[in-house]
Amino acid sequence: MSFSPLIRQLIDSLRVLPGVGQKTAQRMALQLLERDRSGGMRLSQALALAMEGVGHCQRCRTLSEEDVCGLCLDPRRDDSLLCVVEGPMDVHAVEQTGYRGRYFVLKGHLSPLDGLGPEAIGIPELLKRIDESAFTEVILATNPTVEGEATAHYIAQMLASKGVIASRIAHGMPLGGELELVDGGTLAHALNGRRPINL
Amino acid sequence: MSFSPLIRQLIDSLRVLPGVGQKTAQRMALQLLERDRSGGMRLSQALALAMEGVGHCQRCRTLSEEDVCGLCLDPRRDDSLLCVVEGPMDVHAVEQTGYRGRYFVLKGHLSPLDGLGPEAIGIPELLKRIDESAFTEVILATNPTVEGEATAHYIAQMLASKGVIASRIAHGMPLGGELELVDGGTLAHALNGRRPINL
Repeated sequence: MSFSPLIRQLIDSLRVLPGVGQKTAQRMALQLLERDRSGGMRLSQALALAMEGVGHCQRCRTLSEEDVCGLCLDPRRDDSLLCVVEGPMDVHAVEQTGYRGRYFVLKGHLSPLDGLGPEAIGIPELLKRIDESAFTEVILATNPTVEGEATAHYIAQMLASKGVIASRIAHGMPLGGELELVDGGTLAHALNGRRPINL
Repeated sequence: MSFSPLIRQLIDSLRVLPGVGQKTAQRMALQLLERDRSGGMRLSQALALAMEGVGHCQRCRTLSEEDVCGLCLDPRRDDSLLCVVEGPMDVHAVEQTGYRGRYFVLKGHLSPLDGLGPEAIGIPELLKRIDESAFTEVILATNPTVEGEATAHYIAQMLASKGVIASRIAHGMPLGGELELVDGGTLAHALNGRRPINL
């Protein structure tokens, strides 16, 4: 019990951050208290504003505090291309490659064992968006994992009757990896080498 | 610019945490927003409370929201032993070894090149505390670095005329390391193997 209650509470709270264990949380708490209280206050305010203010874009469903996000509103982007990803972090990763079409963000991937079917991850909304828009190609950029492949395959089947090309990012990237962790160059190769899905 | 302003602000703010770079901050921000908003709000509140409420114990100068911290108030501790450390994290580390004397927390170590002399790190307050108390031994548990050794040596010189034993934790621990990173067993050996400083 060598920390006072407020400090213990701060250390416990810091452990909600991914990858932060007990010892790291202690270092973070004490370093903020000893060296950067104004930074700590700014972080507190930024957290409160973001947790309360950030929702989802009505069009692409990425995280955004606006009803429609900046990427969806940008008139210079290619309205014939749609890129489907598993999460907001993947939008950021694909943006680094120079892709300038539109996006649709799923809530993860199909995972029947966890009870995550097409409705749970937003596939009906994706199909509705495609029906209402003029996309000629839908790039399925789910992660190259078993679940991501299954999700891409499922969506491609749904699109087969709609006259839209469903393509899959190339396997230039390692299987079992995560989209958000790969470098931009590899991801750019994967985007350029995309191929139609042969059902 | 694939993140909205509130999210960018959160990512920037997270980088005040030690060891958190751009990519880690992105993961943290999006994971909180996607999966644990209540945890994010709790963290925001804990940060605000701690940054505003935590000061320093008047007696041992560790971080505490009370005027005198729990360790200083505890009547069961040994009033004849004083352990001098470089920071509040070190108090926590020494507590793990089973040490049950009192503490004094310096503000780091002597570092003349950075303009940190005895006054800057609180040595006058340490000497005043020793004069006003009945310590028979002062354990100098500064880090086993060049600056930590110099700080311990300087304090030992100051204590030479006061009839108090100044001891130094044993070099069971690696030179150049940091007190807060070592395991409790090694630190316990170092505490047990302490020796008087021969001037």
